[in-house]
Amino acid sequence: MAIVTDTLALSLGDPAGIGPEMIAAAWAARGPAQLPPFFIVGGAQILDAAAASRGLDVPIARISDPGEAANAFSTSLPVLDLSNGAADDAAYTPGKPNRNGAALALASLAEAVQLAITGKASAVVTSPIAKSLLAEVGFDFPGQTEFLADACKLPAEDAAMMLAGPQLRTIPLTVHCALADVPGLITIDLICRRAKIAAEALRRDFGIAKPRLAIAGLNPHAGEDGKFGDEETRIIAPAIAALRADGIDATGPHPADALFTARARPTYDAALCMYHDQALIPLKALDFDAGVNVTLGLPIIRTSADHGTAFDIAGKGVADPGATIAAIRMAGECAARRMA
Amino acid sequence: MAIVTDTLALSLGDPAGIGPEMIAAAWAARGPAQLPPFFIVGGAQILDAAAASRGLDVPIARISDPGEAANAFSTSLPVLDLSNGAADDAAYTPGKPNRNGAALALASLAEAVQLAITGKASAVVTSPIAKSLLAEVGFDFPGQTEFLADACKLPAEDAAMMLAGPQLRTIPLTVHCALADVPGLITIDLICRRAKIAAEALRRDFGIAKPRLAIAGLNPHAGEDGKFGDEETRIIAPAIAALRADGIDATGPHPADALFTARARPTYDAALCMYHDQALIPLKALDFDAGVNVTLGLPIIRTSADHGTAFDIAGKGVADPGATIAAIRMAGECAARRMA
Repeated sequence: MAIVTDTLALSLGDPAGIGPEMIAAAWAARGPAQLPPFFIVGGAQILDAAAASRGLDVPIARISDPGEAANAFSTSLPVLDLSNGAADDAAYTPGKPNRNGAALALASLAEAVQLAITGKASAVVTSPIAKSLLAEVGFDFPGQTEFLADACKLPAEDAAMMLAGPQLRTIPLTVHCALADVPGLITIDLICRRAKIAAEALRRDFGIAKPRLAIAGLNPHAGEDGKFGDEETRIIAPAIAALRADGIDATGPHPADALFTARARPTYDAALCMYHDQALIPLKALDFDAGVNVTLGLPIIRTSADHGTAFDIAGKGVADPGATIAAIRMAGECAARRMA
Repeated sequence: MAIVTDTLALSLGDPAGIGPEMIAAAWAARGPAQLPPFFIVGGAQILDAAAASRGLDVPIARISDPGEAANAFSTSLPVLDLSNGAADDAAYTPGKPNRNGAALALASLAEAVQLAITGKASAVVTSPIAKSLLAEVGFDFPGQTEFLADACKLPAEDAAMMLAGPQLRTIPLTVHCALADVPGLITIDLICRRAKIAAEALRRDFGIAKPRLAIAGLNPHAGEDGKFGDEETRIIAPAIAALRADGIDATGPHPADALFTARARPTYDAALCMYHDQALIPLKALDFDAGVNVTLGLPIIRTSADHGTAFDIAGKGVADPGATIAAIRMAGECAARRMA
């Protein structure tokens, strides 16, 4: 996909969550944070109110074409009118989500993704949504990642979630399933497929010529030679051998508790983890306010802050925009590499 | 158990591992690190050679009674002759473990523990051993913690492992078993038993009047209301309710990825974790070289550095004594609280 603009599209997220105020705070920090130009799809009133809730001076510039965003960006926050005018805006009720807001969040997400797919935005940065409310307005996906894969006409397995912080990148092989189901879901094929997606994305979008992938074990001490579980010998080690035979620099299975130490982290570019918490515990323990969720394997670039709607603190001026700023910056860097 | 001495007993650990050099380095740092007096059980030659391997000037003082240690400590490293003279010493062969060394490590451990049990030492600080070699010389336990429980004539379930770093304390509910077995091992009774042991130990040995225990969930997002696994609703939440009814300040089940963030850590004194890596990943990611393993629930105080023998780097002068120093200091602090 040829990218012909350097401007990012941001989805609004649930208007009652912290998404809008994080966007306003990121725009206010655009200079020192050296952010690339971006625009928001929909929600001009909400963004105005969210900025005011944090005492930020954020002039809103309504635009009707993404091409107008770059010029407006230095002096105002560009907000693109939604093509579906009906859902163009909603009242700002922080902490109190409702169906109108969910419908707006969905319309904003869908249009931002389409702008990236059609090349009118260089990447999409999504904001947090409330899945249960979205489901009530017709969103039929476990999360935004699966929605994006579907919009790109790819199977969900081809979209890999990567969590990236300043000190660590992790890729969970399984995500939203019971821990008891994890051992049955891990296959040689899944490990190889995800590792190849990760290696390709690290090369293309992160500028790492020969990505080093560390593959975690499933069991304590990576099974200690089969004493505590055989997934390492039966599945993970053969997958690593297959990856290496394909020229991918994969190592492991590494004991998971040793893999995220300060000494181990510089030895790889990303860690492929067997389950959700194995990937997310170290990332959030080290860098809670700077974690970025990147979707690998899609024709478009997509990042998001690695946190939820945080309805409990929305509108209170206490949420930290660090992860949103990091997500915007990372999307810009990835897009610049594709344009180069 | 009345403690009548402030002197700690240290076991030697496997002579081919990093244990002896860590002990020598800790003694050399006794002044700035403000360490309480300690002595080692056996291994005078090994300690001398291990100190030399790091270029440390560590005069060895052989003693025949623990009571002599306190006076000797300021100017020399006191080494108690083993009552079993045959296994009193071994050659220093760093990185090359053998049966003689394992026999010495076992004799040193057994005697150090007995000295703590009989009150001739205020606590025992154990050094890393190689379990497979120890098994060949008659050690019939999964690890040192179970050995200690047996020496104290208690069932292994009554000894709880706690990992303590500068930023976090965690207690794994299950340890050395396959991840697939974890869901079946978690019971209301086990959670309550371990939580009560932890609360009592935090009160008695750590000086925390009303310990706050955070109980982790097992599944991602702590199951998200039963969507990904039911252990939280079926087992963990009822256990927390029972603990609270007993006056213990237990909270949860907490999503494990949120539990170890910088913001969450100050809200509890220890986290009760459902499995090995859930407890060890955050601890080692945050503070690899300062983690202490404390055994709770025993009549004696026992700590150890939270690392293994590290045969690969033994004798090379690169191992960090931070965890050994932290283990010695913590044992001294716990003992002082019991004596007060």
